[in-house]
Amino acid sequence: MTTRVGIYGYGNLGKGIECAVKAASDMELVAVFTRRDPATVKILTEGVAVVSVNDVESYKDKIDVMILCGGSATDLPVQTPALAKLFNVVDSFDTHAKIPEHFANVDASSKGSKHVALISAGWDPGMFSLNRLYANAVLPNGKDYTFWGKGVSQGHSDAIRRIEGVQDAKQYTCPVDSALEAVRSGSNPDLTTRQKHTRLCYVVLKEGADAKKVEEQIKTMPNYFSDYDTTVNFISQEELNANHSGIPHGGFVIRSGSTGVNGQNKHIIEYSLKLDSNPEFTASVIVAYTRAVARLYKEASFGCKTVFDIAPAYLSPLSGEELRATML
Amino acid sequence: MTTRVGIYGYGNLGKGIECAVKAASDMELVAVFTRRDPATVKILTEGVAVVSVNDVESYKDKIDVMILCGGSATDLPVQTPALAKLFNVVDSFDTHAKIPEHFANVDASSKGSKHVALISAGWDPGMFSLNRLYANAVLPNGKDYTFWGKGVSQGHSDAIRRIEGVQDAKQYTCPVDSALEAVRSGSNPDLTTRQKHTRLCYVVLKEGADAKKVEEQIKTMPNYFSDYDTTVNFISQEELNANHSGIPHGGFVIRSGSTGVNGQNKHIIEYSLKLDSNPEFTASVIVAYTRAVARLYKEASFGCKTVFDIAPAYLSPLSGEELRATML
Repeated sequence: MTTRVGIYGYGNLGKGIECAVKAASDMELVAVFTRRDPATVKILTEGVAVVSVNDVESYKDKIDVMILCGGSATDLPVQTPALAKLFNVVDSFDTHAKIPEHFANVDASSKGSKHVALISAGWDPGMFSLNRLYANAVLPNGKDYTFWGKGVSQGHSDAIRRIEGVQDAKQYTCPVDSALEAVRSGSNPDLTTRQKHTRLCYVVLKEGADAKKVEEQIKTMPNYFSDYDTTVNFISQEELNANHSGIPHGGFVIRSGSTGVNGQNKHIIEYSLKLDSNPEFTASVIVAYTRAVARLYKEASFGCKTVFDIAPAYLSPLSGEELRATML
Repeated sequence: MTTRVGIYGYGNLGKGIECAVKAASDMELVAVFTRRDPATVKILTEGVAVVSVNDVESYKDKIDVMILCGGSATDLPVQTPALAKLFNVVDSFDTHAKIPEHFANVDASSKGSKHVALISAGWDPGMFSLNRLYANAVLPNGKDYTFWGKGVSQGHSDAIRRIEGVQDAKQYTCPVDSALEAVRSGSNPDLTTRQKHTRLCYVVLKEGADAKKVEEQIKTMPNYFSDYDTTVNFISQEELNANHSGIPHGGFVIRSGSTGVNGQNKHIIEYSLKLDSNPEFTASVIVAYTRAVARLYKEASFGCKTVFDIAPAYLSPLSGEELRATML
C-alpha cells in the first residue's frame, strides 16, 4: 500500500517532510500547499504540484494523509481542526500546555468527518513523551528528568534579534554535564532551572552598537535568560554564517527509579537524541506516524490520537511477522 | 479496575513480579503457583495462597492475568500455550530465534480459548526491541547497534561452573567503551564480536585445582568465550559472596542514521538501561504489560501479541486525558 501525502506549509519542516517521504518506499508526495504564490515556490521533487492553500479542497480524494507544517502559535490551532474536516492529518503541535485544548478541537472535527488525526508528533512532544510514558509505566517509583540540547532555540535566537543594536544572533541551549551525571548516579537530585541548562549566545552587532549594553539586556531578559547562566559571544556575520547556520538539537529523557522489597535496587532508563537537523528529524518522526494514520483510517479508527495511542508496529513498513523475526 | 494476578513459578523472576505487583496500585496478587510442595515455599506477601501447579485450573475465574515465570529453554514453550487455554497470560520468552514458532503456538491456543497472550516481555526482548523498531521507523537510512552490560550472564557463569576444579563463578559481559564511542560519533563502524564486548570472570577454585588449566579452558571455550577478550580473576568464595552476589545488567540500543537531500545530516538515537537487578526490572516491564493485557481482554482483542502490538497508553494506570496533560 502506497500512502499519498500532501504537505501543507513549505518552510524548514515542510522541506524535511519532503526528504523523509522520499526516504520512505511506501509513500508518495502528491502536492505541496502554500500560502505564497505557488509560482514562486520551488520544491525538490520533480513532477509534484505546488498548489495554493485556497485550492486544497480539490485534493480531497487525491491525498491519503495531509501533513501540517505550520507553527504552533497561530497556524495549527486553526489549520488542524479545519483540515481534519477534509483529510486525515498529522501535525507537530508543540505548545505542551495547550495540547488538551488542541486535542479536543481536532478530535471533534476528525470524528465528525470520519477521519484520523494525529497531533504533536515529533521528538518533544513525540519520542521524548513516549519515553516518559514507558519509563513511568515500568518504574512507578522514580523521578523524571528531561534535558535539552545542545541545540539551537529558535525562540531565544529571535528574542536576542529583537534587541536594539543586534543584527543577527543564534542561541544554544546546553545541558549541564554535572547535572546529567548526578541524575545518572541514581541520587535523584532536585535541580533548579539554573543547574540544568546554560544558554550560549552568538551575537552579531550592528555598527556602532554598545556591546556591553546588549550583553546586559540579554542576560537580564525575564523568562528567556534571567534564570540561566548565560554566555554572550560577539562575532562577525561571516563567522555566524560559517559556523552557526545549522539547526542541531537533541536532549535526554532519564527516569531514575527503584524496585525490590525495600526499594533497594536502583535502575536508570535513559533515552537521548543527538540531531544534526531538528526539522529533518522531526519530519522523520512525523512521516513514520503518517504511515500509522493511513493504516488506522483503513481500520476506521476515527478521531484524534497522539503517539501514546499508536501501537509501535503501525509505524513500520514491515509486517508483524517480519518485525517479530528481525527486531524483537 | 483492579487486575487480579497469578504468578506461575517462584524463582528470581517470580519474586520480582511479586514486588512489582505490590508497587502497582491497580493490581492484586491472588496466588503463586509452584511445582514444589507449596508448604515449603514462603512468599513475601501475607495472605496470598501458594498453590500447586496441579491445582491451577481451579483458579480459572479468580485470576485476570497469569504471569509465567519459567525458563525459555523448556518451561515456556510448553507452559504458555497450555495456560493460554485457561487464562490471559504474559511471559518473557527470550530465545530470539524461536520467537516466531512460540508466537504461532501461543496465538493458536489463546485465540481458541478467547484469551489475550503477550509473549517476550522484558528488556531484551522487550524495551530494547521497542527502541529498535521506533528508531528504524523514524530513520530508515541507518544502522543498528545493541550492546549489553555491564551485567551478569547467568549462562556464561553456569558454563564456567561446569569446568572441573571450579567451585563457583560469576561472569560479567562488558561493552567496549571505544566501540560505543565510535558508534556515537556517527561513523557507522562495522564491529566484530570481539570489538563490541569483553568478558570478565570471577572464579573460585576448588582446593587443589590447577588455576592455569581452568583459565585456559575458560578462554578457549567455543561459543561462550573463544571469540572474546576474556579476563579471569581467581578470588575466594567469601569475596565472591561479598562483591558479586547481585544480578546487575543493562545495555545500549543505538541507531545511527541520516536524513536530508544527500543524507548530509546525521542523527544518533540512543536508549540505555543501567539495572541493579535484572530480574526485578524484567518483572517491572512484565507487570506494565500485564495491565495492557487485562485491558485488551475487556476489548475482546484475543490472540497473541508482542510489545510491538501494544499502544503505549495501555501500559499506564493514567487515563488518556491525564497522560496528554502530564507526559506529552
